[in-house]
Amino acid sequence: MQLTILGCHSATPRISAHQTAQVLEIKNHVFLIDCGEGTQVQLRKYKVKFNRIKHIFISHLHGDHYFGLIGLVSTFRLLTRDTDLHIYGPKGLEEVIMLQMKLGGSWTNFKLIFHELTSKESELIYEDDTVEVHTIPLKHRVYTNGFLFKEKVGERKLDMNAILNNDIDVAYYRKLKQGADVINEAGVLVKNEDLTTDPTPTKSYAFCSDTVYNESIVPIIKDVDLLYHESTFLEKHEKNAFPTKHCTAKQAANIAKQAQAKQLVLGHFSTRYDDLNEFKSEAQEVYQPVDIAAAGKVFQI
Amino acid sequence: MQLTILGCHSATPRISAHQTAQVLEIKNHVFLIDCGEGTQVQLRKYKVKFNRIKHIFISHLHGDHYFGLIGLVSTFRLLTRDTDLHIYGPKGLEEVIMLQMKLGGSWTNFKLIFHELTSKESELIYEDDTVEVHTIPLKHRVYTNGFLFKEKVGERKLDMNAILNNDIDVAYYRKLKQGADVINEAGVLVKNEDLTTDPTPTKSYAFCSDTVYNESIVPIIKDVDLLYHESTFLEKHEKNAFPTKHCTAKQAANIAKQAQAKQLVLGHFSTRYDDLNEFKSEAQEVYQPVDIAAAGKVFQI
Repeated sequence: MQLTILGCHSATPRISAHQTAQVLEIKNHVFLIDCGEGTQVQLRKYKVKFNRIKHIFISHLHGDHYFGLIGLVSTFRLLTRDTDLHIYGPKGLEEVIMLQMKLGGSWTNFKLIFHELTSKESELIYEDDTVEVHTIPLKHRVYTNGFLFKEKVGERKLDMNAILNNDIDVAYYRKLKQGADVINEAGVLVKNEDLTTDPTPTKSYAFCSDTVYNESIVPIIKDVDLLYHESTFLEKHEKNAFPTKHCTAKQAANIAKQAQAKQLVLGHFSTRYDDLNEFKSEAQEVYQPVDIAAAGKVFQI
Repeated sequence: MQLTILGCHSATPRISAHQTAQVLEIKNHVFLIDCGEGTQVQLRKYKVKFNRIKHIFISHLHGDHYFGLIGLVSTFRLLTRDTDLHIYGPKGLEEVIMLQMKLGGSWTNFKLIFHELTSKESELIYEDDTVEVHTIPLKHRVYTNGFLFKEKVGERKLDMNAILNNDIDVAYYRKLKQGADVINEAGVLVKNEDLTTDPTPTKSYAFCSDTVYNESIVPIIKDVDLLYHESTFLEKHEKNAFPTKHCTAKQAANIAKQAQAKQLVLGHFSTRYDDLNEFKSEAQEVYQPVDIAAAGKVFQI
């Protein structure tokens, strides 16, 4: 699993401060998470193939998280895309996109499928054989979701030495991978655990932006491998965090600590800060494995 | 009068191909013309003061001409602007902007005044003591206007030598500037033309994008000082121009020649072209004073 940050600043875009957008590569999927203004140019810059993006997840309808979406959808059309595009986001997103398509006398060559999110509880919004995506209800000034991306537990691995020693017919391999006990050539039942080893450990990624300090997300993101959590402010500006429903670096670290996230990545920085290392050191007073996001930075999970 | 190009490419934005947006400085006004995605960052790059923009003119509702508007309006709000903002554009623009403001739980601290354009004839849409702005009806796939910006004829200039020689009281200076004849201290009528010289010649700028080849605009832009005309294609791709309702460089030059524009600036280039000098040389086969637009390029008028 690999996360590429395209932008991680809040509020207003600047020459070197791009707004929220990320690409998560997971089990052959390329998921786009949020889509601030200029995201399509960032996608080009970091050489993400447009056609591989089939699912876009929008956290909420503040401009720094979705104003780039209509441009990206339009570009997909101009590039004669024919692959379905699924967009997950709050009520209203479909209306905004479709209104602009209509006013432009425009259409798509591809199926544009909106999945409207309205629940205030965590819910499974995407699932296939290899991954699942759950919402993480966040508390912000408008209806907002984070997203939890989880690899599914794969098949058990065949222990070929044990299998040969136990004289197991090849016809049973499929069942073995699925965890079943099998009967060997001599008619004896052999336990699965003697013939296979555990599947590759699964990985997970939680995206949490934007939100006020909110411990109720901890059970949802418990033991996550990588947690991206917003930290719009430093603690010295904590008085700005609550009214705007944002977090400080220290608050983000507190969430990471409670969730025992294996790594915390901070983002959604207010453009008032020049030195982002202060975010890292502030968070590390609470929790050690901290990194800060930056456009173009890649995190291996 | 000074024109700064912020972007002059069509269709899809790329790292070094920004979409249509221009800033016209005229008689103390800073007019923004079109506003493709990323325009606010281009404004920062070329150091245009946001607060000086009080009027935005949108030609039509294709994304490469207005997808940056909602982001710019939002940024104005975040920067606590309190100056009125006038937006001139086609029907539907207000709905798009207001829907996104509403969904973001947003508002403006400043008055946002939409001027809906619907006429298919050229009309005066802005006027004050020093400038006027007229629409230039264009023929494109959706309802589209270009814009003609004209300085108004100023006051006549006092010829101080003649005024002193003719013994004219200072109380008459105002009337003289307005063109009236006056009576001198000896009670003799003195003709205005003997006491004043002509006002500074006025300048004009015509923005024409996007449009199919359309000679009916020639009378509107006749003798314009600077004509920006779209030339999406080279003549070798003329077969693409008519169906998409765009022009070639040669067609743009033909319009400039008929209008006797003092200078032609070509823009709205398709991103398929690497060498934009071909546009210039193609146009110069028809009309000599040709330049090509580029982001950051400034034209003095």
